[in-house]
This record gives sequence, C-alpha cells and structure tokens, in this order.
Amino acid sequence: MNRRDFIVGGAGIAVGAGATYSLLKDGKKSSSQSKKPVEAPMVNKGLLEWRLVTTWPKNFPGLGTGANLLGELITKGSGGRLAVKVFGAKEVVPAFEAMDAVGNGTVEMGHGAPYYWKGKVAAAQFLASVPFGMTAQEVNAWYQWGNGQKLGDQVYKEMGTKFFPSGNTGVQAGGWFNKEMNSLSDYKGLKMRIPGLGGEVVKAAGGNVINLPGGEIPPALQSGALDATEWVGPYNDLAFGLYKSAKYYYFPGWHEPATVLDNFINIKAWEKLPSDLKAVVEAANTAVNQMVLSEFVARNNGALSTLVNKHKVQLKNFPDEILKGLGNLANQVMNDIASKDPLSRQVMDDYMAFRKTASAWSTRSEGAYLPARAGVLG
Amino acid sequence: MNRRDFIVGGAGIAVGAGATYSLLKDGKKSSSQSKKPVEAPMVNKGLLEWRLVTTWPKNFPGLGTGANLLGELITKGSGGRLAVKVFGAKEVVPAFEAMDAVGNGTVEMGHGAPYYWKGKVAAAQFLASVPFGMTAQEVNAWYQWGNGQKLGDQVYKEMGTKFFPSGNTGVQAGGWFNKEMNSLSDYKGLKMRIPGLGGEVVKAAGGNVINLPGGEIPPALQSGALDATEWVGPYNDLAFGLYKSAKYYYFPGWHEPATVLDNFINIKAWEKLPSDLKAVVEAANTAVNQMVLSEFVARNNGALSTLVNKHKVQLKNFPDEILKGLGNLANQVMNDIASKDPLSRQVMDDYMAFRKTASAWSTRSEGAYLPARAGVLG
Repeated sequence: MNRRDFIVGGAGIAVGAGATYSLLKDGKKSSSQSKKPVEAPMVNKGLLEWRLVTTWPKNFPGLGTGANLLGELITKGSGGRLAVKVFGAKEVVPAFEAMDAVGNGTVEMGHGAPYYWKGKVAAAQFLASVPFGMTAQEVNAWYQWGNGQKLGDQVYKEMGTKFFPSGNTGVQAGGWFNKEMNSLSDYKGLKMRIPGLGGEVVKAAGGNVINLPGGEIPPALQSGALDATEWVGPYNDLAFGLYKSAKYYYFPGWHEPATVLDNFINIKAWEKLPSDLKAVVEAANTAVNQMVLSEFVARNNGALSTLVNKHKVQLKNFPDEILKGLGNLANQVMNDIASKDPLSRQVMDDYMAFRKTASAWSTRSEGAYLPARAGVLG
Repeated sequence: MNRRDFIVGGAGIAVGAGATYSLLKDGKKSSSQSKKPVEAPMVNKGLLEWRLVTTWPKNFPGLGTGANLLGELITKGSGGRLAVKVFGAKEVVPAFEAMDAVGNGTVEMGHGAPYYWKGKVAAAQFLASVPFGMTAQEVNAWYQWGNGQKLGDQVYKEMGTKFFPSGNTGVQAGGWFNKEMNSLSDYKGLKMRIPGLGGEVVKAAGGNVINLPGGEIPPALQSGALDATEWVGPYNDLAFGLYKSAKYYYFPGWHEPATVLDNFINIKAWEKLPSDLKAVVEAANTAVNQMVLSEFVARNNGALSTLVNKHKVQLKNFPDEILKGLGNLANQVMNDIASKDPLSRQVMDDYMAFRKTASAWSTRSEGAYLPARAGVLG
C-alpha cells in the first residue's frame, strides 16, 4: 500500500487530507491571523475512545455533571482524537468497583473521590478531605504548588492509576440528623453514613459508621437504617431529598472542609498518551477542578433557601464542645492511621505542614475579609 | 496540483502523513489502549504563532509567570499548532497599550487586569475587583455559572477583543502606608497608587490617586511621589521591596478582595480559530485562573513571615470606622458610575445580585468553617 492509496483509502484520514488540501490552496500566508489551521477532528477523529466510569449516579448534579464536563473538555480539547464517553455508577461497574476497573484496564478512566479507595491504600484518605483540614483554596495550592500532586501520584500508582484532582465540593454541610446534637456523647450508637477520615472520627466518638455510595443514602435514611448522614451540601442534599427523612441540618462541615474529587487513569493508558494529549487531559482536570467548585458555590445558597423556606429545614450549628471534642479525636485517629502506615504518615505530615502555612494566610485574607465585608454590608 | 503532490510537497503536512502512515501500518487495533495516536505537533507544527503581550514586568512572580503558564498550556495542549510567545511590558508595547495592540491586531493576545481598561470601557472595572465585593471563589462562580463570562465578552467586544478570566490574586493586602490610618480623614491629600474602583473610593475620601503600572511603583514610593500604595499581597509586595519605603502594612484588602486577571484576544483571530483550539485556549485559561490563585495562596504566607520577621514590617488592621466609611463611599462611587453608563449598570447589577447569594453561602461555608477550625487548632 503506498502512501497515496492509504490516504485515499482510510476514511477518517482521507477527510483530514482533504481539509488540509483546501486549506493550503487558499494560499493566504501574509499574517498569522489569516492562516486557518486544520481542525484537528478532521485529522485523527476517534483514534482513541476511552470509557470513564464514575462512582456517581448518572448526571448527578455537580458530581456526575463534573465527570461529564471532564469528558467533554478532553474530547473537545483533543479535537476528538481522545474521545471520552462517561458512564454513571452501575452502567459498567458498581460505584466502588470503579478503581479496580481502571486499575486492571477494563476501562481507561474513572471519577470519584479519593477516600473511597482507603481500603486499598490507606493514604488515599488524606487526599480527599481532612477533618479540620484545608479549604478548597488551600488544598488546591497544596496540589498545584506544594507536594500534593506528587504524593497523590505515588498513592494512586499503588492502584495502577495516574491521579488528578478533578473537582471540589468546597466546605460541605455538617449533615442531617434526626435528633439535636448537644454534646459529644450524642454520637454514641448513632448510625451515620460518613465516609473517610470524618467517619473514623465519628467511630471514635462511639458512632456506628456505615459507608454507602450516594445513591443508597436516601432509602437508608428513610428506612431508619441510618439515624444521620452527611452527603455534600445544600445543592446535592436537596437533589437527594434528604430533608424528607431528617429534621436537623448542621453546619459547618468540619469533617469535609473541601472534598477533592479524583480522576484516575489506567497508568499504562496514561503513559502511552502523546504529550499534547497529556497536556489536554491535565488542563481539563485543572479546569474541571475549579468549575465543579464554582458550581457548588453558585448553587448551594439557592438550594439552602429552598430547604429553609419551602421545606422548613432547621439549620443548626455544632456547639463548640462538639467541635473541640471532634477536633481532639481527629488528631488521635489520624495519628493512629499514620503510625501504622508509612505512606499515610508521609502524606499526612506534608498536608499538615502546608495547612499550617496556608491557614495562617487565610486568617489574613478570607478570614479577615469575610467579617469586614459582613460588617459593611450588614 | 493533485492531492498526492500536495501531501508530499508541504513540509509540515508530509511529516503528518508519514506519521499517520506508520501508525496505521502497525495494524494494532485490538484495544483502544494499544493504539498509539499521532502526536499532533507532527501534523500541523507551528501553523499559528501568536504573540501574547502583558502589562506585567517580564516573569514577575504570580502575574508574569501566570501569563507564561497560559502561553505554555496553550502551546502544549495544542501540540504546537498554536504556539504562544509571551512578552513582558515594554518588550513589544508599554504595559497600558496592551489592549490597543491586541484590539487593532498588532498582536493576537494580551494579559493584564480588566480595570486597566476603564478609560476605554468603564464597565471593565466591575470585572476586575469590586470594593467589598466577591472573593475569588465567589467571583469564579459568577464567571463560570452566572452571567459573568457573557457580560465580560460584551465589555471586551467593545475593545475588539474576546475575554477570559485568567488568574486571580485572591484577597489582596490593604496596602503600604507611611503613616498610621486611624480615621477616614487620614485619606485627605494622601498620594496613593490604587487602581480601579478602589481608587475611585479613595479619591472620594479625599485621596490624591495616581495610577501607575506595577514596575513604576517602587521608585515612586521611594521618592515620595507616593505616600501610600497597594500592589497585590505579600508575595508580590516582597518582590517589589515595598517594605523599604513604607512602614505600615494594612489588612484586609477591602478594595480588591479577588482581583481577576484577564486574557484578551483579538476578536477576529479568536473567531478564526478552529473549535478544538478554542477549547484548548478556554481550558488553559480556566486552569491558569485557578493555578495563579493557588500560587498566591501557596506563597503569600511565607512572604508575610519574611516581611514581619526579617524586615520588621508592622501589620495593621483597618479600624472599623475606616472600613464602614469606605463601604459607604464605595456604594456612592459605584452608583455614580452606573448612573452615567448603561453597560456599567448592567454589569454592576448582575454582579451585586450574585454577591448577595454567594456571600450568604460563604457565611455558612468558609465564614463558619474558618473560625471553627481556628478554635480547634488554637
């Protein structure tokens, strides 16, 4: 097969060559603006088709739609050379089997949250959200300018995958409770859905912690299998109708002040990508990382108004006694984990050192500005 | 010229066809992961070369390096099909002529901050930073999920350019002063560099406001041409050595709680881009928008420690009286601008409506969480 035959013969490529042909025929080369480059989709259309499995219900607001956005940005940015098709939980594999499916190469990509994989690699918990840990703005700084990305890659490599932060919920709500929480002892025997390190803290406080994927929370809360649950924040919690089954909605989300979502990619598939597609995937993840957070910020307050005004939800603040008690338990629980696992120790120590620096600046920036603005706006 | 001749004849394209050929020759099509796609750089290398002029000193930390990052992400993500070369202020045109140079097509792209263009289109001020306005997290939500992007495009179209938010400083510092600021009357006659709406507020308070590009601030403060200046925050202010010429460093940055940087693109050049390169440029801007903010968060506290511990800078908080007074003046000043200019009115009203919603959520999220964490961490 000679080159001419091949080009005329291969469908996708023939189109590309045709487009290139008509481009150069016009001969305008006087300035860079007058050149009309070939559309990449015409050149290599559909050369790679990747499947992205998620831990989220299909199209779930903020989370599932964040994964959709990731697929869209990669497909568009690559001009279709890397076409990503997104699947909800259970469409290919159940929610919590997403990591196995990606690690073993059944599919190429996944989207979820790092703490879902703590059973595989304990250190993954510290990549998701840390009780009394960093806010979204702080943790993004850790990932992008500190050691977060490097440590994340190290953790995910143990699961056969490449890691990207790919969305953030911002400060979550503290959760839904069917009773008032007045002291730390109110956690004793409480059947609560709360994942990751926050769940370990509630367990240490005597709670009966149950880990469920999002889609299974509403029936469990309704049936009484759960006394309490956290999910994300007003936007997502409203979508799940959690207000129907629990009366009190607590703030702030001490357990998940900024939950990082993850994009995990089969490590061999990642390493085979050419450098420009790697750049497209990386930029898409950084963009999605911000856009998901922005969506939560944009939607949460409207949803909170609906919960309060339409559904008569009672907003509560955790009393200081509970916060301090949980803070002490958080230190114990995290040190316990780190003392048994060197990788957890490494990630945690680096995270905590960055938190110290970043939180000191937050005190002078958002921490000083938000009350100053509130004082002026009334 | 037939198709074969063309393909063999055109240097860049011939390489592309060759690469495609050797790809398909290997015949491996059993799974998507085993296909090795053509590197895009081989297909259309250097087809577009764009110049990006900035208002920043070349390689200036956070700002100039943010522009560098934008150029790098676009060049890499496009596989070199859109190669961006970045220039510091004065390398092609002086800082404040960047918009003209892009608008008239001398160069294709620019990077600066929207308030630098208020002399051309007054509404641009509201796109940069608003006194007592939104934080970075809030304003990103406005741009990405509210009407911010649409309104920004409308404003920049009047200058012949396409607009992207492309970096954010976060909450800035309140500025450097050679005297203590105890009451609003201390602004009377104060020669201060402060741009945008914050500058209008200080002018209304009786200040003598002077607008200078960054590079000209240090000598002006040193010579006494300025009594006070704001620039960005500890990271940038340390780099400029402002502590050498003013004794007091005030917080918080009421005037610029989240200054948006802009990427502006000649509108005709933008419209001629194929859709995949548009997607690359858009994702690169969203990524840079977050990464610049993250860099400020990551670096500011270390720089603040250096300022305090090494250079003995005195940190001060604006007294409530000054903040309230400036808040009242801010409302007057902004309403004055909006009353004279329908586009400013449109942008401002939309911005303020979003601020109301977003700040209510911030009260329950970061606003509740930061003090709770401070209480626990001590």
